[in-house]
Amino acid sequence: MKAEIIAVGTEILLGDIVNTNAQYLSKELAQLGIEVYFQSVVGDNPQRLKDTIFQAFSRADLIVTTGGLGPTEDDLTKETAAAYFGEELVLDERALARIERFFQQTGRKMTENNRKQALVPKEHGKVLYNENGTAPGIIMEKNGKIIVMLPGPPKETIPMFEEQVKPFLQQKQEYTFVSEILRVASVGESAMETLVKDLIDSQTNPTIAPYAKMGEAILRITAKAKSEAEAKELIAPVKAALRQRLGNAVYAEGETNMQTVVAQLLLEQKKTIAVAESCTGGLVTSALVEYPGISEVLLEGCVTYSNDAKMRRLGVKAETLEAYTAVSKEVAAEMAEGIAKSSGAEIGLSTTGIAGPDGATAEKPVGLVYIGLYDAGKTTVMEYHYTGKRNQIRERAAMYALDALRKALQHES
Amino acid sequence: MKAEIIAVGTEILLGDIVNTNAQYLSKELAQLGIEVYFQSVVGDNPQRLKDTIFQAFSRADLIVTTGGLGPTEDDLTKETAAAYFGEELVLDERALARIERFFQQTGRKMTENNRKQALVPKEHGKVLYNENGTAPGIIMEKNGKIIVMLPGPPKETIPMFEEQVKPFLQQKQEYTFVSEILRVASVGESAMETLVKDLIDSQTNPTIAPYAKMGEAILRITAKAKSEAEAKELIAPVKAALRQRLGNAVYAEGETNMQTVVAQLLLEQKKTIAVAESCTGGLVTSALVEYPGISEVLLEGCVTYSNDAKMRRLGVKAETLEAYTAVSKEVAAEMAEGIAKSSGAEIGLSTTGIAGPDGATAEKPVGLVYIGLYDAGKTTVMEYHYTGKRNQIRERAAMYALDALRKALQHES
Repeated sequence: MKAEIIAVGTEILLGDIVNTNAQYLSKELAQLGIEVYFQSVVGDNPQRLKDTIFQAFSRADLIVTTGGLGPTEDDLTKETAAAYFGEELVLDERALARIERFFQQTGRKMTENNRKQALVPKEHGKVLYNENGTAPGIIMEKNGKIIVMLPGPPKETIPMFEEQVKPFLQQKQEYTFVSEILRVASVGESAMETLVKDLIDSQTNPTIAPYAKMGEAILRITAKAKSEAEAKELIAPVKAALRQRLGNAVYAEGETNMQTVVAQLLLEQKKTIAVAESCTGGLVTSALVEYPGISEVLLEGCVTYSNDAKMRRLGVKAETLEAYTAVSKEVAAEMAEGIAKSSGAEIGLSTTGIAGPDGATAEKPVGLVYIGLYDAGKTTVMEYHYTGKRNQIRERAAMYALDALRKALQHES
Repeated sequence: MKAEIIAVGTEILLGDIVNTNAQYLSKELAQLGIEVYFQSVVGDNPQRLKDTIFQAFSRADLIVTTGGLGPTEDDLTKETAAAYFGEELVLDERALARIERFFQQTGRKMTENNRKQALVPKEHGKVLYNENGTAPGIIMEKNGKIIVMLPGPPKETIPMFEEQVKPFLQQKQEYTFVSEILRVASVGESAMETLVKDLIDSQTNPTIAPYAKMGEAILRITAKAKSEAEAKELIAPVKAALRQRLGNAVYAEGETNMQTVVAQLLLEQKKTIAVAESCTGGLVTSALVEYPGISEVLLEGCVTYSNDAKMRRLGVKAETLEAYTAVSKEVAAEMAEGIAKSSGAEIGLSTTGIAGPDGATAEKPVGLVYIGLYDAGKTTVMEYHYTGKRNQIRERAAMYALDALRKALQHES
């Protein structure tokens, strides 16, 4: 089944709201094994709406619309779909009663044009009652073409899809699609692609799709099968091959992020940590603090931005700062060791670097970052060169610092 | 000028990412007085991409695309547009040099397929150099039809549009639309709307549009006129009226943010500061560190998450923690004073609160946050109650802490 998603509403074309429904519906349809070929947004304009719906039906079997079911004259989704199917709209007493009740409950006054929302197809239609607003949704189906019309507000769209539309679509599908995700850190998207290109190219079911996020890269493995179990069986060997190729660069599977993975490892291993940041300026610590309960293991973070703070808080030696400058392997090492020892934490993590735009020298360019890790009496320092603007460099450095910690913790577990 | 926006990328059709670019571009085009008639999303499929672009040109004068400029074989936006215009693509040495430099700086290896990104139209084209990634953007213009092709990641799309595309489109428009922005802090969106509702309702040119961002509210005043000067004259009295109504809650005008305003005030006044954070966990410090050159005045930040760290680093008294608990007015005060004194900074700023989901008691609910400010020997503590999830509470608290600092600094200047 090929599908298209159409959002109806001038407010989206004006940029007043983000079309989050399209993402939600795309993801849900993909999981049902329904391929979405197009998403579009059209304003509250009768001719353009008609053109869009008729064209979508020339290409797709299923159209899911959001919006345009309201009480005003501008709201024409239902009328346009009825015209396509040659269907008459009639008043549905049950839908009307629900609308009246909704107005009573909210204490607002129902106007005459709200009755328009209770119009439903005479035949070939199914009413989707709305528990969270006034506009009922509608499914119309005829000659192998289906249109699912949902209201616009996500708090009405999502429960209606979940409870009424999903079961309807599920029983129409022969195949199911299952996706699994590998998350890769400290490797760029194109470097990752090069590493696994032959695997990507040789696969058709499952398929492998790479994409990039800030400081990480993602591989999505998607299988098509008659059952979920069968799909997972298809995915397993491909995932294993990718994991073998990428090794330790794969930091997690599924919907998670680096700070969650690292926080969980720290909590599982009951390892206390303290963080000393210079160029990242609190990003590493604040990412860890996103995880509820982290206070059990995160003893403290210090943003030792000045040399004085590095010496006073962390015990970095004046001679080291003098001989090597603040952005150096040596200072990163003393920072990591210093924050661990002064806080009493088992692990010390440090960052020092040149985020720019100023502060660079011939030997120390913008983007140079040292990450120090003190653990079990041993200090390791890594050197990285990032590009981008100040805050991109800072964010990448924070991700890499967390990844260095992740690798150390996984090695020990 | 009629416009359409096309996003190219299977990842949007799969629901992996939200198409926020469409909202950004719609809003920007609306402000330029360009009407957007359709937004669409098409996958990385040559035939469907071609159909979409050709159809859009049958309806619109201007197409803005995002995505599909990457190095892989799937990335075909440029090639499709070139086919529409009958244009040849040739290697641009300057674009290639930039891509090579980008790879050198990141220390990553440039692969052969990255050269594809340096292909540009032989005639009728304008290259949009990319400061934030490898893919240059392209404008092609011929016979009254224009296509603007931008990369997909918002970090690349937005600056490229702002700096290179907007001036290009502006000079094509008869009317100019000028917007000015007032930024309001420590007041919710609906509270702000109530304060200025009569002004909003009575205005047509300029219009006043309120909207909300994390921890701040924004008023956008937009005038339509034949010249920028005329538009600014229309805006001036309306802006003055809004400013009078909102007073000190207006923290800035235009495209800036709270951390920039506060960092500039600190630097202008040469006031040194240190920050002690508990619930915000580094967000206040890392926001300040976003500002280049902040190291002159920001001496340090401490995330004193544990009671032990509060005592050891900041000199918070054991009796105070015992008597009032860590989330209290008293501890916020000792934290602010402690960080200032121990770091030698003139100003100390502190946060302590319950970000949840755990840690609440009957007297101290989730969302309770104390913000302490020590300045010139005097300590002030503010109490706030926020709603939302853990990280929303943390981000709001960080914004309010910076705003408290802003008010103190403005009062003194």
